[in-house]
Amino acid sequence: MNYPKTILNLIECFKKFPGIGEKTAERLALSTLTMDKELLETFGESLTDVKTKIKKCSKCGSLSEDDLCEICKDKNRDSSILCVVEESKNVILFEKIGTFNGLYHVLDGLISPLDGINPEDLQIKSLIKRIKDENIKEIILAIKPSVEGETTALYIRKMLEGTDVIISKIAHGIPMGADIDYIDPLTLEMAIEDRTTIS
Amino acid sequence: MNYPKTILNLIECFKKFPGIGEKTAERLALSTLTMDKELLETFGESLTDVKTKIKKCSKCGSLSEDDLCEICKDKNRDSSILCVVEESKNVILFEKIGTFNGLYHVLDGLISPLDGINPEDLQIKSLIKRIKDENIKEIILAIKPSVEGETTALYIRKMLEGTDVIISKIAHGIPMGADIDYIDPLTLEMAIEDRTTIS
Repeated sequence: MNYPKTILNLIECFKKFPGIGEKTAERLALSTLTMDKELLETFGESLTDVKTKIKKCSKCGSLSEDDLCEICKDKNRDSSILCVVEESKNVILFEKIGTFNGLYHVLDGLISPLDGINPEDLQIKSLIKRIKDENIKEIILAIKPSVEGETTALYIRKMLEGTDVIISKIAHGIPMGADIDYIDPLTLEMAIEDRTTIS
Repeated sequence: MNYPKTILNLIECFKKFPGIGEKTAERLALSTLTMDKELLETFGESLTDVKTKIKKCSKCGSLSEDDLCEICKDKNRDSSILCVVEESKNVILFEKIGTFNGLYHVLDGLISPLDGINPEDLQIKSLIKRIKDENIKEIILAIKPSVEGETTALYIRKMLEGTDVIISKIAHGIPMGADIDYIDPLTLEMAIEDRTTIS
């Protein structure tokens, strides 16, 4: 004897999510038993909607239910500055700060020859095209400081050689509120490198 | 700008699960973007199936897709001994051990006057009826040693006064592998109380 088939199916589905193991999947699947029918129906519908309704913005590549995302549609935003991010979900992170008023460009990954990810697999060509077509003045590279991130940044810089677009990168350094005693040497090195003059 | 509506719906649904907060819900909702369409469809269907397909076994109250659960249907099990548990999911826990060969009875809660849960709200009447009708020789109370658990155990004992059914309870004591140094006094007290002779 084990759980009924429906519950077993649910456990298997929950286990497919990152960070959810056997025990948690069981707990989550069993908690559906006491949930409202309506809630479960909405949940079920939203899950299937993900594949049918969610698209990528045809311009910047961020998540959207329309052809163009809300940001690209917004006429009040500064269309001369692009924030270049690795994944579409990063866009939301930056939007949550609420201070960046430019547009975005989602690369859909980082260059990683070891994993077989080459520049052609990413949205780099379309980035270069946008920079030229849309008269972009500055791109901010907001990608992580890993080997792949550095390679990607280097490649983009090379591709833009000879153009007068400003290429900047977000600062890497001590997180706000962190105690300097506990920061790793690499971060400290970056913090010194990315230092800014204050007077 | 925020997530598309479908993703927001998903985040809200995930947040309804126990132990899942805003951040985890976001992470889980976003991970659906890279999942197979088939998996998401199975997931969605299973969620709605929970309310339509999963019933309670008409005899013991454990989870089942049929009128009678697999355990109650099984002719090879010892039908003279009942393991009394609080919730239907507890049945699976005991089944996982694989050594208990009797039947179960799910109380659907514990007596708790403060929460407005009285004996009539639980499957106690049906338990007493089963004990008489099915010629049960022993019931094992496998309920937690809380105030509610003790009250429920006491009530069941009172209801069975004058019958010759054996009432036992599972042992409370030191968990296997635990260091005795770190056990709380109440558990130690229970462990002494529930001691067994070994020679």
